[in-house]
Amino acid sequence: MQLVSFVHKGINRVGVRCSATEVIAIGESSDAVNVTPPAMMDLILDGTDAAVRALDDAKNSAAQSIAIDDISWLPPVPMPGKIVGVAMNNSASNERKISAPDHPAFFLKPSSCLIGHKAAIQIRSYYGSVHPEPELAVVIGSTIRDVDVDDAMDGVFGYTIFNDITSNGMRAEDLFHYWALYSDDSDPEKLHRREQHLSYAARYKGTDTFGCMGPWLVTADDVPDPNNLNVQCSVGGEVIAKDSTRYYNYKIAEIISYLSQFQTLMPGDIISCGTAFKASPSGKTIHQANLQKIAGPVSVSIDGLGTLINTVLVDDKPIGQWRLPAQPELNQVS
Amino acid sequence: MQLVSFVHKGINRVGVRCSATEVIAIGESSDAVNVTPPAMMDLILDGTDAAVRALDDAKNSAAQSIAIDDISWLPPVPMPGKIVGVAMNNSASNERKISAPDHPAFFLKPSSCLIGHKAAIQIRSYYGSVHPEPELAVVIGSTIRDVDVDDAMDGVFGYTIFNDITSNGMRAEDLFHYWALYSDDSDPEKLHRREQHLSYAARYKGTDTFGCMGPWLVTADDVPDPNNLNVQCSVGGEVIAKDSTRYYNYKIAEIISYLSQFQTLMPGDIISCGTAFKASPSGKTIHQANLQKIAGPVSVSIDGLGTLINTVLVDDKPIGQWRLPAQPELNQVS
Repeated sequence: MQLVSFVHKGINRVGVRCSATEVIAIGESSDAVNVTPPAMMDLILDGTDAAVRALDDAKNSAAQSIAIDDISWLPPVPMPGKIVGVAMNNSASNERKISAPDHPAFFLKPSSCLIGHKAAIQIRSYYGSVHPEPELAVVIGSTIRDVDVDDAMDGVFGYTIFNDITSNGMRAEDLFHYWALYSDDSDPEKLHRREQHLSYAARYKGTDTFGCMGPWLVTADDVPDPNNLNVQCSVGGEVIAKDSTRYYNYKIAEIISYLSQFQTLMPGDIISCGTAFKASPSGKTIHQANLQKIAGPVSVSIDGLGTLINTVLVDDKPIGQWRLPAQPELNQVS
Repeated sequence: MQLVSFVHKGINRVGVRCSATEVIAIGESSDAVNVTPPAMMDLILDGTDAAVRALDDAKNSAAQSIAIDDISWLPPVPMPGKIVGVAMNNSASNERKISAPDHPAFFLKPSSCLIGHKAAIQIRSYYGSVHPEPELAVVIGSTIRDVDVDDAMDGVFGYTIFNDITSNGMRAEDLFHYWALYSDDSDPEKLHRREQHLSYAARYKGTDTFGCMGPWLVTADDVPDPNNLNVQCSVGGEVIAKDSTRYYNYKIAEIISYLSQFQTLMPGDIISCGTAFKASPSGKTIHQANLQKIAGPVSVSIDGLGTLINTVLVDDKPIGQWRLPAQPELNQVS
């Protein structure tokens, strides 16, 4: 089942995509009855069977059929509790790793960065180089903590396409090279300095419109093997990645199980599982697709999940006035 | 005004702390009237004046007075849209920086990591070294994008205490040293390899119970100068930090203004402004407070905002089974 979050006649709705031209809206919505229609989060909390029943009810009302041309697409889950990205999970990047953890590593994106199908990726000149990262995203269906790998897939409600827009310009700016302090294992009073490199992802991964998601959510029962889906990404009609989720270093169950040993996953949470970036047959890669220089649209297709398309708007707006004239008072070194 | 989110008789409420022993609950709540009481987000959206009026109404009903001993404390904003942390914003860390950005850098924490006053920080042996980071947090009151520094404070609804629990054990594990690909500025087809160090913060900053917040929210009108507040942190009764927000490298208005050039800030969003970690007069620092080894409680006091206290629970639970027996199929190098 393909579930869609959308706006129709100014009202946020949720529905089922029944064909290339028609959505069946679930739940009543009219000015006459002062009722808030259900949202995707309600369907997730109620489960797939309840969504099927709601669809059957909706089908009996002709008023619930809406032409797809008349809707504006929202991200399938418009306000997830969290969006977790898996870092460098494509085995094609392994040969570029000098050292790396032996487990999945994660970053977060804020829900404020999300846009839906057909919305514009908005890029300002001061964002630096920006590129698309086509990914398979998991939508969590239940509350999960400490799930073993064998049971991890039971917590999946469905899948969607995620374009994890990334500014490697900002990434190169938000690096710290410094002397970190660590306490001694045997004597916590004693401190050691350790040279360390840290980087911070909230700007380069979390800027507005850096999370394209959709067009719709496909429930898990309709995706028999999420670890074997072809992924293709194009910019301006030219293919820049042709890859498959079977090349992830960590399978989806491993990602969910490992993450749940640290964080409680909640219904509606999104895990974007890693970038498909293997070069296209013509030799193009996502790293050549600097959206500051190459016009969109950007499209990402995944087997069985559809094609997510977003336009690109580049704006030469300079950064605003954010510094106070006064210098801060410096702290005494401890 | 001190606003409190809490649970009383199994129901989530919001109220005003009127004394050390009494909270006035805002809004009706009873089994007889099937009404959801307002939450902190409602008060934020309605603004401070509306909260004052709601308090006046509540004061007329004796039923609204609740003994503080009878409540369980929630984080003042239990489910913020996002929690943004400012990295290395204390000028006492400047002498340890070999290189650093010339603007604020940010990380995100998920709302699932939040706990309120008096709840336990839960630490497992496999989390590695974990320490507290006492911080001033801003609660955003309106939708903000591209705000100039002179207007930035208008968007603040209030302040609270944030203890940004951090595992530098996990931090040291989630580092990548690798050859990043960058396209040539003059010829995007051309790619250069650049040696880069990246680190990923979602585990070391976002694990469950790693965000202590509270005890309450103080509205902005009651905090005349947030850039000049003493901050003190103790573990097990021993002071490990004695510092002031006046030593931040970036003032609160600068942080809000800069962040808003990239991300839309929403009502209820939290910005935790940076760690106060200057050593205590006895020479102790937060880096010596490895909560795996030193028992709690952890308390953070900030002038005018109260004292946030959390106990510490260490658990020797091992990590669960998260690896599949099969090795992943490796991608062809592009």
